[in-house]
Amino acid sequence: MKLVTFTSAGTDRVGVVDTASGLVHDLSGVLPDGAGVLEVVENWDELGPVLARQASEQPGTPLDSVRLRAPIPAPRRNVFCVGKNYREHVAEFGRSGYDTPGRSEALPDKPILFSKATTSVTGPYDDVQSHPGVTSELDYEGELAVVIGRGGRGISRERAFEHVWGYTIVNDVTARDLQRDHKQWLLGKSLDTHCPMGPYAVSADEVPDVTALELETTVNGENRQLALVKDLIFDIPDLIATLSAGITLLPGDIIATGTPAGVGIGFEPPKFLSRGDVVEVAITGLGVLRNRIV
Amino acid sequence: MKLVTFTSAGTDRVGVVDTASGLVHDLSGVLPDGAGVLEVVENWDELGPVLARQASEQPGTPLDSVRLRAPIPAPRRNVFCVGKNYREHVAEFGRSGYDTPGRSEALPDKPILFSKATTSVTGPYDDVQSHPGVTSELDYEGELAVVIGRGGRGISRERAFEHVWGYTIVNDVTARDLQRDHKQWLLGKSLDTHCPMGPYAVSADEVPDVTALELETTVNGENRQLALVKDLIFDIPDLIATLSAGITLLPGDIIATGTPAGVGIGFEPPKFLSRGDVVEVAITGLGVLRNRIV
Repeated sequence: MKLVTFTSAGTDRVGVVDTASGLVHDLSGVLPDGAGVLEVVENWDELGPVLARQASEQPGTPLDSVRLRAPIPAPRRNVFCVGKNYREHVAEFGRSGYDTPGRSEALPDKPILFSKATTSVTGPYDDVQSHPGVTSELDYEGELAVVIGRGGRGISRERAFEHVWGYTIVNDVTARDLQRDHKQWLLGKSLDTHCPMGPYAVSADEVPDVTALELETTVNGENRQLALVKDLIFDIPDLIATLSAGITLLPGDIIATGTPAGVGIGFEPPKFLSRGDVVEVAITGLGVLRNRIV
Repeated sequence: MKLVTFTSAGTDRVGVVDTASGLVHDLSGVLPDGAGVLEVVENWDELGPVLARQASEQPGTPLDSVRLRAPIPAPRRNVFCVGKNYREHVAEFGRSGYDTPGRSEALPDKPILFSKATTSVTGPYDDVQSHPGVTSELDYEGELAVVIGRGGRGISRERAFEHVWGYTIVNDVTARDLQRDHKQWLLGKSLDTHCPMGPYAVSADEVPDVTALELETTVNGENRQLALVKDLIFDIPDLIATLSAGITLLPGDIIATGTPAGVGIGFEPPKFLSRGDVVEVAITGLGVLRNRIV
């Protein structure tokens, strides 16, 4: 099932998308008052079947006529993120001089984990603010993101997928100058609108083999990133096991799994984003993010 | 005003503490249904006067007879934190070999910002889990924390204190091995129960000069940290201006301002925490955190 959050008459609605017909069915009427996608994920065992049963009963609206927000517009806490999690990206980041411990191209032996502030989350087609005066080195990072379903601590690699509700796409937009100058990455990763997300939250049953998914990022139509999820250094079970060893994961937690080679600072000279640029991130079956820099 | 969250008959209550009498007055009855300290901070202009008026009208219970939780037990997002923000601590951390970019004792020229996951927050007298098998290098970091009142972006140094609701104490408990090995600090800072907070959220009107506050940390009664808030490298206006330049701060956001010299890895050999140890962090007028390692 493909869930979306969209605005209608000024309020957030939960929709189920039928990509074949291009329609979104407004399901908020059959959900508890005020329930968003987050509450649906939290109560999936109960609400998933309700949505499945009711989706075709509700009138459909053309998807391209509504304004999509991020599927989870206001996460309960910061988005978990992973740095340097594709081989070739480790090399380009190491060479770039933007990495904190100097120009190391060595593969990490443990996942590098940081977070993006909740207020960075924005819609799949919303504008990304360039924050002039705050950063002058804006970059993109297309990423697969995991949405946690059942929470827990001490989740083993073997049982990790039992805790995955589904998937979405994230552009881990990064202010490279802030990332470098402030050493820890929170600030450089967290500027307002720097986490476009969506367009859908796709339940795991629609993704039989997540490692087969292909991620592609373009800037103004020019190919920049192309990779398979199977090339992650630390795969999804690794990430869930590492995080949950000491941190209780919560339903609705979002884990952005890292970006492949081809980011702006991977080029010589770097290709930073400018106002007017349009960044697209596509993943097989999960749709496309399309955001203009303003 | 000193606000607390305490449990009574299994539910969270908002209390106002009178430290002179040692009583806590249960104010939940005069607040909107379900409102916690976070909602009080969000609606301070309206609810602050209600609490001030009603506190003495409500029956008092001895403070030491109730179980205090963190004043904000479930923050809306991760706790903002600052690394290496006292001179002598920069030197000890640099010497320790646990810092990411090697053994640098240079002062940071920009604030080092990271976060602690919401699930690390625990009560002021609750046990701190040692997480055997996950970390074997547990350390303490006593810190002054700022609670944001009015949110905003682009807050100037000059107007920063207009956005401060008040203050509390945080022990930024750290798994040093994870902090070092995972390069970015989120994981090593975020294990469950590793952010004791409280005992009170103290409104800013009770703290005429925050720079005059003194912080003291002891382990099993042995003095370890002693510093004045005026010795912060990046002061509270710096931190608010830096964060809010590109991140919209929200009411109830918590900013832990950094720890002074005297942490466990500052000693040769390091003095890590062990089960049974009791860590106390006291700040002038803000009370004392007291947590046992289990």
